[in-house]
Amino acid sequence: MSLNFELLRETSTGGRRGRIDLPHQTVETPVFMPVGTQGTVKAVAQDVLESLGAEIILGNTYHLYLRPGHEAIRRMGGLHRFISWPRAMLTDSGGFQVFSLSDLRKVTDDGVQFRSHLDGSSHFFTPEHSMDVQIALGADICMSFDECTEYPADRARAEESLRLTMAWARRSLDHFRAHANDVPWRVDFAGRKQSLFGIVQGGMYHDLRRQCAERLVEMDFDGYAIGGLSVGEPRELTMEVIAEVLPVLPKDKPRYVMGVGYPDEIEQYARMGVDMMDCVLPTRAARHGLLFTSEGRVNIKNKKYAEDEGPPDPACDCMVCRRYSRAYLRHLMQAGEALTGTLNTIHNLAYYLGIMRRVRAGLEGAAPVKPIAREF
Amino acid sequence: MSLNFELLRETSTGGRRGRIDLPHQTVETPVFMPVGTQGTVKAVAQDVLESLGAEIILGNTYHLYLRPGHEAIRRMGGLHRFISWPRAMLTDSGGFQVFSLSDLRKVTDDGVQFRSHLDGSSHFFTPEHSMDVQIALGADICMSFDECTEYPADRARAEESLRLTMAWARRSLDHFRAHANDVPWRVDFAGRKQSLFGIVQGGMYHDLRRQCAERLVEMDFDGYAIGGLSVGEPRELTMEVIAEVLPVLPKDKPRYVMGVGYPDEIEQYARMGVDMMDCVLPTRAARHGLLFTSEGRVNIKNKKYAEDEGPPDPACDCMVCRRYSRAYLRHLMQAGEALTGTLNTIHNLAYYLGIMRRVRAGLEGAAPVKPIAREF
Repeated sequence: MSLNFELLRETSTGGRRGRIDLPHQTVETPVFMPVGTQGTVKAVAQDVLESLGAEIILGNTYHLYLRPGHEAIRRMGGLHRFISWPRAMLTDSGGFQVFSLSDLRKVTDDGVQFRSHLDGSSHFFTPEHSMDVQIALGADICMSFDECTEYPADRARAEESLRLTMAWARRSLDHFRAHANDVPWRVDFAGRKQSLFGIVQGGMYHDLRRQCAERLVEMDFDGYAIGGLSVGEPRELTMEVIAEVLPVLPKDKPRYVMGVGYPDEIEQYARMGVDMMDCVLPTRAARHGLLFTSEGRVNIKNKKYAEDEGPPDPACDCMVCRRYSRAYLRHLMQAGEALTGTLNTIHNLAYYLGIMRRVRAGLEGAAPVKPIAREF
Repeated sequence: MSLNFELLRETSTGGRRGRIDLPHQTVETPVFMPVGTQGTVKAVAQDVLESLGAEIILGNTYHLYLRPGHEAIRRMGGLHRFISWPRAMLTDSGGFQVFSLSDLRKVTDDGVQFRSHLDGSSHFFTPEHSMDVQIALGADICMSFDECTEYPADRARAEESLRLTMAWARRSLDHFRAHANDVPWRVDFAGRKQSLFGIVQGGMYHDLRRQCAERLVEMDFDGYAIGGLSVGEPRELTMEVIAEVLPVLPKDKPRYVMGVGYPDEIEQYARMGVDMMDCVLPTRAARHGLLFTSEGRVNIKNKKYAEDEGPPDPACDCMVCRRYSRAYLRHLMQAGEALTGTLNTIHNLAYYLGIMRRVRAGLEGAAPVKPIAREF
């Protein structure tokens, strides 16, 4: 048995208030998932993430495979135990990073040959290998191995990429199902296992996207992601693709849009019926001094904040806004102090998680959905 | 009125259990003071320092003068308020950093001309200016402006350096007393003000050290520091100088040894009768992966910890040792993750503060001292 998705409320425009029951955590949706690339949400300790209310975080398969290595993590009982994170986790397939970070890629139908961005060593990733690595890491949710179509891509390129992604989805699912008992967890969650999501690709071509979604749904994954967005396309296209794909996906399974976005985007997509989102933006921007606030974006490096004794965001009650001033955060940044990354990140995550909390509260007012929770 | 020092217990070998009542905090002694050079104990948030039980931290006058500038801090109500640290603080005089960090120093009887290590700009520090800066920063305890004698230094050099330090101590004290009401605190601590400590110099020459201490005591500072140690001399010499100077200092005022030391040193000096110590060692070593533990020093980068699921220190109950493994800390270090500095530093500070806690508990068993608390 994998995840259990309970759809609680639904608006006339498609917004969904739900609940994903995962082995390590029941996750209230729509949810924003902070990114913990190398087994740490950069600069923030796990107890702080807990106090911020993060219920699920991401780990990156590519990075963890290269360092410290999935076999080491497997021997230590999986990623949850290794990083001491008791709540839910999701790992990506490694595909996106192989394509965006590594050198000398060679793609065949079988898989991808690439060189590590760390030491130039040579590696070969197949759908089966991605599954093996993700099973070793032991996240609650794994992702099928896909090829993320770049933007722009002409139709021929998008079709070829889609063909590969579909074939790899099938192989991912078969291998994953065949090894469902290999997860290294040292805790038994009443026999509960990992889940696997399929990833909808197809570039910006609506018919390809629909076709991909339909075929994935036939394969019957535990959930469905929309990938290949936020790759440089105009935001309007992103929204159109999401709007095109969502109706094709089954209502009784979680829907995840990968790698988005700005605060107004995640709010918009959540209201459209997206259940899960992740993005490096709040954490990465924080390290560069960009704060998301109720008053808009604040570049804390700006000289005008040098003696600003006000909180980063007057409407925020996170631990950073309750205690520190803009002047202090600016000073930490100017002085190159490590604490700047920590405090900025905590605020930005609080802001993102707060948006989702408000969206969920808003959706509570929608019509209740006849219970459809079932075991997949 | 400045600090109030209460000597509670005293051992036959000179160890003292005391209490320093400062405007922002009553500090239990012997105490170790974490160093917060630029207005932050590197990589550790203020609430964590509080939970570790830190009662007093240091700020560096030289760094804060250069950035963000003492006038800005003064306008924002002082350093406590600027960095949101409600407990006690101590600022050094800036002298040590001027001599160790800045370029193109020129020392005259009047003061020191130097160039900023940040931008090469030219600055002139006098005892009066150091007091003005420290008053603007508003620490509970300020330090007189001194010249830290290098090691090794021949007798002529040590005598000349001492002459300067004595003249500057007098000027520091006069200027400090004349401006006792200039502190920018926005809270009134029942009229309580900053305190000023004199600094005993004299190189490794015992008679110079004694002579310096005697003359400083005549000037009647609020407390006395022993400076010019941990500058490269053998540890035996450090201990000898401390043993030589302590008996010259009045029993009813706090004694502070600056810039020491390793865990066994701070324990030893505390048992000898030193009330206050500070050192960058636990924080700086942490950032380089060196942990101080009950089992000795642990270089967390070592490959042997790659799959070590044990806590950094099995005998430690700090938030890091309760939650994380050596393997995880090693991974964070190998991966260059910011969290490594944070977690390592938290443990090392917990270890240092724990030593002082145990020393204080041990001293509780000593003979009670007839109350001598008074207003200085």
